[in-house]
Amino acid sequence: MNEPKPAWIIAKERSKRENYQETIWLFGLHAVRDALENPIRHKLRLIITKNAADKLSEAINRSGLLPEFSDPRKFSAPIDPQSVHQGVALEVKGLNWGEISEVCKPINNGSRVVVLDRVTDPNNVGAILRSAEVFGALAVIAPLRYSAPETGALAKTASGAMERQPYLKVKNLGTTLDKLKEMGYFIIGLDSEGSSEMGNLGTILDGPIALVLGAEGPGLRHKTKDICDVLARITPTKSFGSLNVSNAVAVALYATKNFNKT
Amino acid sequence: MNEPKPAWIIAKERSKRENYQETIWLFGLHAVRDALENPIRHKLRLIITKNAADKLSEAINRSGLLPEFSDPRKFSAPIDPQSVHQGVALEVKGLNWGEISEVCKPINNGSRVVVLDRVTDPNNVGAILRSAEVFGALAVIAPLRYSAPETGALAKTASGAMERQPYLKVKNLGTTLDKLKEMGYFIIGLDSEGSSEMGNLGTILDGPIALVLGAEGPGLRHKTKDICDVLARITPTKSFGSLNVSNAVAVALYATKNFNKT
Repeated sequence: MNEPKPAWIIAKERSKRENYQETIWLFGLHAVRDALENPIRHKLRLIITKNAADKLSEAINRSGLLPEFSDPRKFSAPIDPQSVHQGVALEVKGLNWGEISEVCKPINNGSRVVVLDRVTDPNNVGAILRSAEVFGALAVIAPLRYSAPETGALAKTASGAMERQPYLKVKNLGTTLDKLKEMGYFIIGLDSEGSSEMGNLGTILDGPIALVLGAEGPGLRHKTKDICDVLARITPTKSFGSLNVSNAVAVALYATKNFNKT
Repeated sequence: MNEPKPAWIIAKERSKRENYQETIWLFGLHAVRDALENPIRHKLRLIITKNAADKLSEAINRSGLLPEFSDPRKFSAPIDPQSVHQGVALEVKGLNWGEISEVCKPINNGSRVVVLDRVTDPNNVGAILRSAEVFGALAVIAPLRYSAPETGALAKTASGAMERQPYLKVKNLGTTLDKLKEMGYFIIGLDSEGSSEMGNLGTILDGPIALVLGAEGPGLRHKTKDICDVLARITPTKSFGSLNVSNAVAVALYATKNFNKT
């Protein structure tokens, strides 16, 4: 027979469950349409003006959700009144993308993942999700406690990619990087002092790669750098200047693209 | 003897003069430090708290500007009170980068310029100035009436690049593109329906290139597309998704880099 669980484990599990049950309000025509059309998105409530409902009628019909109509002059959804909601807000649950071991299982030599070491700005993370999708990265991975949360603002900057691009939160970035290594990934940290040039990685490109980027300013943490297999730089033409972090991700994904994936 | 100028010309010239005389308030430690240290930046007034002045003392000394001290609890600079000013605001004049014919004169086969067809979001333009600087583009060019103005907010997202990266406003984008052609530039428009793949432009890379990008959503205008020598795309791995415009600029600059500039 199993031992009864200690109280702290029960409390932890409950908090985890509650976390999963937390809901998000998405807003704006684009973000809501993409969520309505996402079959794996759990949708709860749709608050919408007559005008916006006309524009989204097809997506609403397909979703099977019953809209709650709101007066445009007094939009009743519980969102920041400053939000550019365009007359529509949708309450949803967070997406559960599954486990790293499944989502990031290398498919071929061109498999890529993006790992963010404390990048918390939703504008940057939204753009990163878009680039990850365009360049076919299997996932964007971030630490649970230091990441841009999945919110309406992130959905808006991600322009649809939040519904489609796996964005996994992990408890510990170090153990996750070790796991990725075990799964066959070569870990490349982006660092302005890196020993290799990003465009000159040679045969490293012929295998799964995890690209790790830190927040602007602090960059990669020391303990993250220590885990990386190599630190690579994008050398500025002059001796100064630096890329915005989302631009750095896009360039790194492009530079490490494997055109010969067999 | 010259004919007297018609009234409308006088009015136009005055408005142009006034435009040049318009001043901008920069704010935040980084942006103000970079402006103070920029010898070609015309600086007018520095409003600063004692605390911020300590942090910027060297730059202030070198600038020769006499700071006006302000109470941190009632910061007196005429800027949006929501701005993250960190106790410092600097009134400056806009930078005059000079003429296209000078600034964009090709230096070698690797010369690049970035042309923005109505990209107005300051977050994107700030990131684009940074990428342009990192990849050594001679200038970022935008139409005067449909561009992100040089403001404190743009300076903040540009993280110093606004002081160093030529950002030219032109009256007419079409005539500017024609001029760039005359100067030897090959004009590449970015377009999702483009006939060429951005990574596969071959010998085009062995010469000066102007990369033209439109705003997200509308993309390049028809008349802009017509002027381009070629329309190139960055093909998404799956059949959907799109890059944020600043990420697209960064990838395009990287993809068209000429490593053999002689």
